[in-house]
Amino acid sequence: MELNRLSHQEKINLRVGLQQKYNDFKARYLSLDMTRGKPCAEQLDLSLEMLTCVNKDYFKAEDGTDCRNYGGLDGIAEAKALFSEFMEVTTKEIIIGGNSSLNMMYDMILRAMVKGVAPDSSPWGRQPAVTFLCPSPGYDRHFFICENLGIKMIPIDMDDHGPDMNQIEALVAKDESIKGIWCVPKYSNPTGCVYSDDTVERLANMPTAAKDFRIFWDNAYAYHHLTDEYLPVKNLLSACKKANNAERALMFGSTSKITFAGAGVGMLAASTANIAFIKKLMSFQSIGPDKLNQLRHVRFFKNMEGIRVHMQKHAKILKPRFDTVQHILEQDLAGLDVATWSRPKGGYFISLDTPNGCAKKIVDMAADAGVKLTPAGNTFPYNHDPRDCNIRIAPSFTPLDDIRPAMELVAICIKLAALDGC
Amino acid sequence: MELNRLSHQEKINLRVGLQQKYNDFKARYLSLDMTRGKPCAEQLDLSLEMLTCVNKDYFKAEDGTDCRNYGGLDGIAEAKALFSEFMEVTTKEIIIGGNSSLNMMYDMILRAMVKGVAPDSSPWGRQPAVTFLCPSPGYDRHFFICENLGIKMIPIDMDDHGPDMNQIEALVAKDESIKGIWCVPKYSNPTGCVYSDDTVERLANMPTAAKDFRIFWDNAYAYHHLTDEYLPVKNLLSACKKANNAERALMFGSTSKITFAGAGVGMLAASTANIAFIKKLMSFQSIGPDKLNQLRHVRFFKNMEGIRVHMQKHAKILKPRFDTVQHILEQDLAGLDVATWSRPKGGYFISLDTPNGCAKKIVDMAADAGVKLTPAGNTFPYNHDPRDCNIRIAPSFTPLDDIRPAMELVAICIKLAALDGC
Repeated sequence: MELNRLSHQEKINLRVGLQQKYNDFKARYLSLDMTRGKPCAEQLDLSLEMLTCVNKDYFKAEDGTDCRNYGGLDGIAEAKALFSEFMEVTTKEIIIGGNSSLNMMYDMILRAMVKGVAPDSSPWGRQPAVTFLCPSPGYDRHFFICENLGIKMIPIDMDDHGPDMNQIEALVAKDESIKGIWCVPKYSNPTGCVYSDDTVERLANMPTAAKDFRIFWDNAYAYHHLTDEYLPVKNLLSACKKANNAERALMFGSTSKITFAGAGVGMLAASTANIAFIKKLMSFQSIGPDKLNQLRHVRFFKNMEGIRVHMQKHAKILKPRFDTVQHILEQDLAGLDVATWSRPKGGYFISLDTPNGCAKKIVDMAADAGVKLTPAGNTFPYNHDPRDCNIRIAPSFTPLDDIRPAMELVAICIKLAALDGC
Repeated sequence: MELNRLSHQEKINLRVGLQQKYNDFKARYLSLDMTRGKPCAEQLDLSLEMLTCVNKDYFKAEDGTDCRNYGGLDGIAEAKALFSEFMEVTTKEIIIGGNSSLNMMYDMILRAMVKGVAPDSSPWGRQPAVTFLCPSPGYDRHFFICENLGIKMIPIDMDDHGPDMNQIEALVAKDESIKGIWCVPKYSNPTGCVYSDDTVERLANMPTAAKDFRIFWDNAYAYHHLTDEYLPVKNLLSACKKANNAERALMFGSTSKITFAGAGVGMLAASTANIAFIKKLMSFQSIGPDKLNQLRHVRFFKNMEGIRVHMQKHAKILKPRFDTVQHILEQDLAGLDVATWSRPKGGYFISLDTPNGCAKKIVDMAADAGVKLTPAGNTFPYNHDPRDCNIRIAPSFTPLDDIRPAMELVAICIKLAALDGC
């Protein structure tokens, strides 16, 4: 029964019971952390062999390159071969970097501020204003980069097909200061949505007032399926090429959530013109990435099939965690009209919408009782969720046995907050 | 006998003989590369154990941190402990980064352009001009960074005690646009000089018109001795602290030329205020460096004594290479008054000065006969050696047996160029 249709007395009785349960939780002194999309130890164990597969007898690339030495600005050939297939581009359209795709995105923007994004473009930092579109809820670290660099952010609504393209098209057509948009196109952080073909096509084809407009395509969860249904997403670079907007696409990928979160391999895929421009600027920054770690990845996976099989093992570990979250939410909240949540088929998050104005309060209540959640608001630009309703649930790192009590507590907090009208 | 004191006929005879030798070299179709300060395979072999010392049974830091996972923006505790001793600072004055100190220097400058160097400083990119002092001959990649970012460079003369402090003090006192200076204080690239205590003191104490002046102290060769005489260099950060200029010092170190050139560990040491400011900005760029590679280093070396012993092994490999260069130069050029060269007690280079206006020609002649040298001019800002006389010799990567013919050829080219008056 919907919570707000209860009688006054029923609400009072329910509240007393919930408060008691909340107090009981508090007395258990839990200390559970569901804040970040970190792989759990069991997932990291899947790649342990990678630690020693490059060794004293094996440290050279196929072309004879000594991976221990300097050089190779854009990565070793076999890493380009493997990860260009991974990113669905050619080997001429990819740069294999160090251990962080976030770092590659940040560097891309910082370079754009100082040097622009193409030989004939001017530095963004010299413009009167730089604006990014931010489909929200989205990934906090994308928004933090913009905020830190003084880039104005405009939130864009999300639905099951991706960001609201009508909003986007209207904005980019007239505002020359809009230089970019953040996208997590597959199993989006945090809603889990997958961009529809139509969304990708419209992003690739829409006219933009800014000639140096760029789509920051953070495809972090491309192979991170939780079900047997591997949802595809249209290739942005191909779509942009067809639309004669090849330079618009900057696609990022990473093995951080495939091998080791702190010692994976980041990558950037883009048009050959973009790659040439970026490599030129990178040549001042670095002599090259850690080639040994790239070699480890290639030797460990061998080919795309190796990555796909590996991702099934991840899914096996993650699926029960996601199922538990879904189960508790369903069991404790279904029909009460106090929350809606996503049912992602991949990725790392469940996006939970509480009654308006309640998210901060719920996160605080859960924290007081020992369960840390991503700070409310974090999934929006400037940490400001205009409806204060979105909470990101990250079940990967929390031990399976802890997810049940953590989510039970969250459900209690939601119901209490809803009863109290926040 | 000095070459220019020979009679006309003697010169002609000598020239014919040299030309014949040069032609003989050409006929050998050599293909030798002495361009870069790359370690040779034998040196890289010294660290082979490091490849597998982190393994499935050993991937956690002392404090229990799972080095495979995300986190730890400024490095793991034991890496900070080891490398703070290495850099002669406290563990609160250091950031342990990824595989490249060059990358850390570039990022430092790019952040300075966009965000400034302190909470109360303004972005360098918003100043009418930014100028760096460039002791020359120096490290080409330092100069390339400035050139790429539009930072004006002023060359500063070098002698055996470091850069000419009179020039420097006069310039920084009056020119507010001078925001920085590049220094390689020990076994300098390429001259091999070690900054004197007086030089360090004056750098630390000199009044600067710019309040946000920074010394980029690239101490890349701190432990790279070639003799038993371990030359010390005064600690810049300590000197700056004493001079109430603590924030002036930005010290960089690296294991690229200690373990693996492409998979070492870079580090930045500075005042706690600088470290706090830098970490704040880094937090937008990255979730953290590759901690597994830091752990490999700590496990492999254990302590500073481990590094010192390891460096003796490097010296054993490098010393004969440097000795061969010295031997040939001495044998073929001494007393002719056509060249002077450095006799470094450490580092990676020998700096060779030819007659004015001859360096480019000599490098071209050597290249035509199969020996690649660092392009003449590279050791100066804007690739412009005002006297066109400096050549950087990098003997580390070239097989020992090849150094003799390579240097014999260089000596022939120098004599030919000198005879021809360039």
